[in-house]
Amino acid sequence: MKLQSFAEYPFVEGGVCAAKGFRAAGICCGLKHQELSTTAAAAVSASEPDHKPKKNDLAMIVSDSECAAAAVYTSNKVKGAPILVTKQHLQDGKARAVIVNSVNANTCNADGVEKATAMCKLAADALQIAPEDVIVASTGVIGQVLPIEPIAAAVPALTEALSYEGNAAALNAIMTTDTRPKEVAVSFQVGDVTCKLGGMLKGSGMIHPNMATTLTFLTTDCAIAPEMLQRALSDVVRVTLNRVSVDGDQSTNDMACVMANGAAGNQQITAENANYVAFRGALYAVMLNLARMCAADGEGATKLIECVVSQAESEQIAETVAKSVICSSLLKAAMFGADANWGRIACAMGYADCDFDVAKVDVDLASAAGKIAVARNGFGVPFSEDEAKKVLLEDEIQLLISLNSGEAAAVAWGCDLTYDYVKINGDYRS
Amino acid sequence: MKLQSFAEYPFVEGGVCAAKGFRAAGICCGLKHQELSTTAAAAVSASEPDHKPKKNDLAMIVSDSECAAAAVYTSNKVKGAPILVTKQHLQDGKARAVIVNSVNANTCNADGVEKATAMCKLAADALQIAPEDVIVASTGVIGQVLPIEPIAAAVPALTEALSYEGNAAALNAIMTTDTRPKEVAVSFQVGDVTCKLGGMLKGSGMIHPNMATTLTFLTTDCAIAPEMLQRALSDVVRVTLNRVSVDGDQSTNDMACVMANGAAGNQQITAENANYVAFRGALYAVMLNLARMCAADGEGATKLIECVVSQAESEQIAETVAKSVICSSLLKAAMFGADANWGRIACAMGYADCDFDVAKVDVDLASAAGKIAVARNGFGVPFSEDEAKKVLLEDEIQLLISLNSGEAAAVAWGCDLTYDYVKINGDYRS
Repeated sequence: MKLQSFAEYPFVEGGVCAAKGFRAAGICCGLKHQELSTTAAAAVSASEPDHKPKKNDLAMIVSDSECAAAAVYTSNKVKGAPILVTKQHLQDGKARAVIVNSVNANTCNADGVEKATAMCKLAADALQIAPEDVIVASTGVIGQVLPIEPIAAAVPALTEALSYEGNAAALNAIMTTDTRPKEVAVSFQVGDVTCKLGGMLKGSGMIHPNMATTLTFLTTDCAIAPEMLQRALSDVVRVTLNRVSVDGDQSTNDMACVMANGAAGNQQITAENANYVAFRGALYAVMLNLARMCAADGEGATKLIECVVSQAESEQIAETVAKSVICSSLLKAAMFGADANWGRIACAMGYADCDFDVAKVDVDLASAAGKIAVARNGFGVPFSEDEAKKVLLEDEIQLLISLNSGEAAAVAWGCDLTYDYVKINGDYRS
Repeated sequence: MKLQSFAEYPFVEGGVCAAKGFRAAGICCGLKHQELSTTAAAAVSASEPDHKPKKNDLAMIVSDSECAAAAVYTSNKVKGAPILVTKQHLQDGKARAVIVNSVNANTCNADGVEKATAMCKLAADALQIAPEDVIVASTGVIGQVLPIEPIAAAVPALTEALSYEGNAAALNAIMTTDTRPKEVAVSFQVGDVTCKLGGMLKGSGMIHPNMATTLTFLTTDCAIAPEMLQRALSDVVRVTLNRVSVDGDQSTNDMACVMANGAAGNQQITAENANYVAFRGALYAVMLNLARMCAADGEGATKLIECVVSQAESEQIAETVAKSVICSSLLKAAMFGADANWGRIACAMGYADCDFDVAKVDVDLASAAGKIAVARNGFGVPFSEDEAKKVLLEDEIQLLISLNSGEAAAVAWGCDLTYDYVKINGDYRS
């Protein structure tokens, strides 16, 4: 997938370790087969050629100093225990470390909060920080008891493995059905000071708008007050992660969090000034790309579908229409088949919960292979099926919808629906 | 699929021809390959062993006398032209015939209303009735111009073929990706008079609650005033067709209509009395079974999923939760794999747009093979995966959810998500 770049925010290497003063590590503690072994598990680097059988399942991200911290959470009423614990820990807008496991979501378990709290305590003790400064997250199967023993046994080795180059190993640990690691980092200017901001994301299924979508961890060395950090995060999530849907299923464990340690040395951002705008721009550059990567790597996906709705009366209308289209199972299956069955776009627009004039709608299909008009003023127009096929055989497809009734626009991202989605989810737990 | 039976409403043969005075016919006019041939197409019975290559695509249902008529329509803002025309024709609560085609939805076409009107005129002329007494419906691909010539050429032969045993041929004509014909009829008592009510339904994909769902045609020889007929239909659709979802895609052409010709000779039902209750019960018995058949034959489906939510504070809450569960792609894929990944039920309940206490939720999985508890008070309980697998390998699965906070209940119906759904929809138009 091609990254979308912005001149003011050049990409840099390092993911969550790009910003100064952040170390990370990932390890395989053995949650996959729930072996309650107490022997320390071996750290596995994501770059090892044989990493698959030993995929990491436990990660930490740690700042050298206290951070301003902010997060957004799933709006699912059924919330993973880690969400409840993290919410409490971030009440003071401060944090210093993240501990996160995959394989088991620690959700719908009677002892969930107890286990999530224990994970924080384990990390805090090893790092000699307060448990309230630890963010905890889990992802994986819902409703199975999380064994704490493998985690307890692995935390010393995990702490030992922390490094300023540990981003890939940590990222490997949070992946579930993800087929590709997803991380991005950029540098940006705050006054004369160069800051960095980077992030990693896991998420492939159970992904739907109106939530924090997936697990996303972001770090920056920019100095910014907790309330401004929260404002920027909420603002950017709204137009990035909250506009991604893979399968319409909104997870119980979704969370996006950001830690800002101020190590870059800029004057702290405390108001919505030019520096805030620069910071929010960097956050957008990172999260937009993470969102696109997330959609493109949706479970079983072969294509990224980007729906751009423009000339709408309001952004709300544009967003509702765009989301409705990318969520349509029928359209997603047609995209898999590279079939220009645009009537399914019309259908999905028609059941979007908002008002617009159907008789003004124009629809085009576009990709690197070209652009083709399929509807004008709400009605079909003749087009070459061969040309359309060529456009749809690319792996990044744009559905361009103009409502011709205003100036607002919104973009939403999804993917095609494939045999592999069914395969992956027909027997996810084995 | 086993029919759900009710003692007061014994099943009878005949589908839309079960009630006195209704004739039907189906024919292949050649819309599939859009051959604009003007030679009359040959009538094809649904029972012919080689009916597949010559599947019917045009049907009529005709009453010997004027009928009270009522209908409910899709709430999709993009409406098929036939919907617009039928709505106008039913303003007086009267009708006498239905003409319906498959293959082409006559939707999003600049000349759609003109073509739908022409279809009514063709039927009316052949039957020597008023065009305003004709209900018109179309189903198939959206956004392709409907050729009227094959229909015009076929109407004389279609009219000729009308018979009191024509229900199967008519039903064959409305099927698209349906793998099984779906028709039910019952008899019932209105005072001393025996009446009959029957219906047929097409629909396999693009099926989602909050609409009339699919095309459904119902006929009865019971005498009932148009306003009472409309009330009964709206009432029953709410708890049957509107609680079915195959893929979350709400069609542009959905319609359920009923014609009542009074040929049974009962005293006309004009108020909500015992006779009305008997009539509504018959309608429910037919539509409940059509709804279940529709879900069970969802595109690519191998199983019917019935979600029963009970002990809810209100029916609205029970319905919202039940629909949310049957719409979850992840759960549907797990059901295909007979995987008791009940966390996906919890997840889908959690994002249902209504309030209930998660900590009170009990969940059981059931089928002809047994019943198994998977969650109590919102948390997982230990269960045998082998036993659960046995339960889920059946082809009718019940997801039993108790909210333990009231006395209301609701049922919703869906199906599993399979490779075949993707296959069918990856290239629907070819």
